[in-house]
Amino acid sequence: MTRRQKIANSIDDGILGIVVVVVIILYLVNLTLETVPSFKVHEEVFKSLEIGFTIVFIVELIVRLAVYERPFKYLFSFFGVIDFLSILPSLIGANSLVLRVLRLFRIFKLFRSRRMVRAIDEIKATIWDIRSDLLLFGFVVLILLYLSAVGIYIFEHEAQPNKFSSIPASMWWAVATLTTVGYGDVYPITLGGRVFTAFVTLLGIGIIAIPTSLVTNALSKAKKRARKQYVT
Amino acid sequence: MTRRQKIANSIDDGILGIVVVVVIILYLVNLTLETVPSFKVHEEVFKSLEIGFTIVFIVELIVRLAVYERPFKYLFSFFGVIDFLSILPSLIGANSLVLRVLRLFRIFKLFRSRRMVRAIDEIKATIWDIRSDLLLFGFVVLILLYLSAVGIYIFEHEAQPNKFSSIPASMWWAVATLTTVGYGDVYPITLGGRVFTAFVTLLGIGIIAIPTSLVTNALSKAKKRARKQYVT
Amino acid sequence: MTRRQKIANSIDDGILGIVVVVVIILYLVNLTLETVPSFKVHEEVFKSLEIGFTIVFIVELIVRLAVYERPFKYLFSFFGVIDFLSILPSLIGANSLVLRVLRLFRIFKLFRSRRMVRAIDEIKATIWDIRSDLLLFGFVVLILLYLSAVGIYIFEHEAQPNKFSSIPASMWWAVATLTTVGYGDVYPITLGGRVFTAFVTLLGIGIIAIPTSLVTNALSKAKKRARKQYVT
Amino acid sequence: MTRRQKIANSIDDGILGIVVVVVIILYLVNLTLETVPSFKVHEEVFKSLEIGFTIVFIVELIVRLAVYERPFKYLFSFFGVIDFLSILPSLIGANSLVLRVLRLFRIFKLFRSRRMVRAIDEIKATIWDIRSDLLLFGFVVLILLYLSAVGIYIFEHEAQPNKFSSIPASMWWAVATLTTVGYGDVYPITLGGRVFTAFVTLLGIGIIAIPTSLVTNALSKAKKRARKQYVT
Repeated sequence: MTRRQKIANSIDDGILGIVVVVVIILYLVNLTLETVPSFKVHEEVFKSLEIGFTIVFIVELIVRLAVYERPFKYLFSFFGVIDFLSILPSLIGANSLVLRVLRLFRIFKLFRSRRMVRAIDEIKATIWDIRSDLLLFGFVVLILLYLSAVGIYIFEHEAQPNKFSSIPASMWWAVATLTTVGYGDVYPITLGGRVFTAFVTLLGIGIIAIPTSLVTNALSKAKKRARKQYVT
Repeated sequence: MTRRQKIANSIDDGILGIVVVVVIILYLVNLTLETVPSFKVHEEVFKSLEIGFTIVFIVELIVRLAVYERPFKYLFSFFGVIDFLSILPSLIGANSLVLRVLRLFRIFKLFRSRRMVRAIDEIKATIWDIRSDLLLFGFVVLILLYLSAVGIYIFEHEAQPNKFSSIPASMWWAVATLTTVGYGDVYPITLGGRVFTAFVTLLGIGIIAIPTSLVTNALSKAKKRARKQYVT
Repeated sequence: MTRRQKIANSIDDGILGIVVVVVIILYLVNLTLETVPSFKVHEEVFKSLEIGFTIVFIVELIVRLAVYERPFKYLFSFFGVIDFLSILPSLIGANSLVLRVLRLFRIFKLFRSRRMVRAIDEIKATIWDIRSDLLLFGFVVLILLYLSAVGIYIFEHEAQPNKFSSIPASMWWAVATLTTVGYGDVYPITLGGRVFTAFVTLLGIGIIAIPTSLVTNALSKAKKRARKQYVT
Repeated sequence: MTRRQKIANSIDDGILGIVVVVVIILYLVNLTLETVPSFKVHEEVFKSLEIGFTIVFIVELIVRLAVYERPFKYLFSFFGVIDFLSILPSLIGANSLVLRVLRLFRIFKLFRSRRMVRAIDEIKATIWDIRSDLLLFGFVVLILLYLSAVGIYIFEHEAQPNKFSSIPASMWWAVATLTTVGYGDVYPITLGGRVFTAFVTLLGIGIIAIPTSLVTNALSKAKKRARKQYVT
């Protein structure tokens, strides 16, 4: 194995890769603590650390491009684009909020560990298997959200014109209710609205049972397939 | 294929069908935005658009009846009735809220796409398979809701006569609690009421597990059946 | 078939049985509406109806005891005891709240319909199959509730001495949180309490997944068994 | 069987073991009621009882060490360490809150009953089977929580600088929302924040479906394995 290959292996699965993962986590911690108001006095420290982390990311990308046999293939791969986007803001000297959010995509690099690859593949195969069912399900949920919003708007608009001011505003209630989060900032007060809510939430529980069932069945198939594959 | 058949195919699965789906979505967007208070100044625009959409729906229905071999069969089918009902209010010149809601049923026409038919058939077969279990389940949930309402009424009526004024009023609490939405507008404050709530919610979680189990099992059977069918 | 047997059959599955079910439902509706404050003026009507329903129940019990071959076996069966208890308050002239609640057990008589028996048997076999798992699960949930209450009490007692006044009081928070109802009347405000809540709720979701899994597996077995039985 | 072995058996599964379990439960009840403010006047009683219970625990540990063939193996086992830790605070005369919490671990001794061992083994085998999946799932949930917190911070920080003051503060919202508890102390009010919440909660429901599916599949396998084992 040439030196170049050794570094390539190390940055993907060896000691260099672990260093990068640690830097990503420290970078995220830095980004997170920077927003705490009581830490505002140490702003200089956070900024300096961020510059340091960015330098590490730049060095990482340069090393990767140098040691890989096909650097351009990497640059246009999923992780290559993430690497590039997370460095970009620093390169062009911009530091807007939107650009900094791009760097958050680095979080997905944490999934590169070979140990997780098998589990991820299983989940991916599972989801791929039921893509048309999930699409239909998402579609049904959207329609249910919309019809719930229209229904509650009809029942509650007159009684609570501020909270259920329009159908889009009622959508917020529909989301909080059908997901059973129920913040309690908006809720029906009329008899009709409450009966409608009872009907919608009970239906909603039944519908929420469907993705669990779909995933359970598909996962069962994916596991069987995986076992066969590893046996053969 | 005659010209008539070509149009019939096109309106069901081809380019004409896509046009109709787009018009339905635009119609719903129009209906939704019309209710936003800050858009009230553009009311004229919304009304004009609605008339435009309705004309498209009328034309669609006429075309369907003209090209189908058995127009009356269509008119009395599920989608035919929806088509008719959504045009009716405009025909008789009425524009009340109730009649306009009828038009919302157009939303179900979005499900006509052939791609979704297989997934829908699977779900339908699944639900049909466990219809007696689901009926029993719905019945158990209704009784649980009722008994919960009676219980909390007994415990909380004296302490909170406004919130738990009657058994029907307590039903609202039972719905919000057993579905785990928990808006927080009504909740027990007495010791007895809270112990009762603990008992009811824990039972409720167990009961909510049942439809997921039923659907999972039935779906597994439906998938096997479907695979056999497509193989043979 | 003798006349006696005919009546016995009719009261169990025939026309007489349906009459009894209808009377039970009317009785429950009467009981429910009686509690609505705005209906208080019609109290006389509700009382009269209740007397009428009770007479039907008494007649029903007498008929059952007269036509059954082994009346005493029925009297000491589950439904016989319910029949007796729901008549008792009227017989001894008492009308306290507790005694009237006994009558609610009549609701379970609605399950006698032969159509539901097969579905109920399936569910019963399923639950019986996993009784030791369910017991363990209930035990784990109780311990989790208790440990959550102790934990939140330690973190929040000083910050919110009124809401988290004692461990039993904190149990109320634990119930509302672990069942994901989240009324919002009590919630942690300290950093420690919130981190603890995050830990407990995420664990709770995992634990709530367990009964669904147990029921799904047991139901799958019960369904297979049922199929075999009906084939042979 | 020698007398020593008889006592060892009795303390593990016989009458002595039951006595210890009862004392543990009484000890927990004592600990719980002691925190109730209205019981503060009886503080002396609670303290005395606690001393009594601790003496029982000390005697139990001494007996165990005396009758077991390999006392040191027990002392360093899971239950031995719990026994020791729960006695420690009394031995060194300290009575701090943290040390007393250690005693709560005694609760796990309730699981020693032989009846529960089989069910526990099943659950343990199930969880062990899917340890890598559960790890991945936990990791995905953590990332989802973090990204949700960052997202809502971006949308809501300006509108509600007090409630969404920093990313760590927004984590609290993310926990309450993704677990669908929804206390209602913090919720988005901007359009962007609400649309983001809709997206996040719907994704969250899908993700919560995954552990149920994993556990269902693994449990199915574990049950099959167990059946084989008990047959052979």
